[in-house]
Amino acid sequence: MSFTSHMHRALAEARAAADRAEVPVGAVVVDPAGRIVAAAGNRTRMNSDPTAHAEILALRAACAAAGSERLPGHDLYVTLEPCPMCAAAISFARIRRLYYGAADPKSGGVARGPRIFEHPQAHHVPEVYGGIAEAEAEALLTDFFRARRGADASGGDI
Amino acid sequence: MSFTSHMHRALAEARAAADRAEVPVGAVVVDPAGRIVAAAGNRTRMNSDPTAHAEILALRAACAAAGSERLPGHDLYVTLEPCPMCAAAISFARIRRLYYGAADPKSGGVARGPRIFEHPQAHHVPEVYGGIAEAEAEALLTDFFRARRGADASGGDI
Repeated sequence: MSFTSHMHRALAEARAAADRAEVPVGAVVVDPAGRIVAAAGNRTRMNSDPTAHAEILALRAACAAAGSERLPGHDLYVTLEPCPMCAAAISFARIRRLYYGAADPKSGGVARGPRIFEHPQAHHVPEVYGGIAEAEAEALLTDFFRARRGADASGGDI
Repeated sequence: MSFTSHMHRALAEARAAADRAEVPVGAVVVDPAGRIVAAAGNRTRMNSDPTAHAEILALRAACAAAGSERLPGHDLYVTLEPCPMCAAAISFARIRRLYYGAADPKSGGVARGPRIFEHPQAHHVPEVYGGIAEAEAEALLTDFFRARRGADASGGDI
């Protein structure tokens, strides 16, 4: 599996989230051998869980499978810039490289706002690569919110 | 139940965490009528879950019980200043008031470092009261890490 195919799997998780009426964000965790060990889409509404972002669900599943709260050498692919909650979880899990798709001016916590990885309180900082398959990730979100604005005026967090 | 007794319950959760060899942090969520609807201590090691901080576990339990990803009018008591992951989750859950005990210069994300509530990316900001039962919360942590330094040189995230 290549770099691009990992992000395509994350995009597939994002589309599946949209089909569940969840904000379309998807994530995968890849082990040091390049195998996908966890994949998830956002489930905050379905699970009644404000922490059920794609990244958190994928990290929790990968940690459970590994039997460890840390995933050294693992990479995380996510279709949207992580929020500060997810960025901090990525640091706690010792993720090696973070690849993300679209920028998130409204709620992002990596390249803007709290900039989680730029403070001494982040005890592990992954390598960060943004803008991967950005146009596709952004189109998914734009289409989702455009459709929802017609049906439902309430906003989402992500 | 009063303000002080809620923090005492959180301290009891922190002591129970220490008895499990987890970093001693405890949290409770209190509903608008003043009832404790969830209480938890840190379980990151036991659950192999880097997100299993006391606040996250208490928020997830309270949301599951309420059948909602938001807890308007609810307050959260925690023995230690939340890290950025937990602070962002507190914002997502729409917690009304955050009461915390000890300051956390090493890993805190409320009064230092990423200062989660001070950016426009935080779409809900609770009222924040620090230093509640601070000496007791701090003593629990100091005793735990002093004892562990003898037995185990590895540091914790919290």
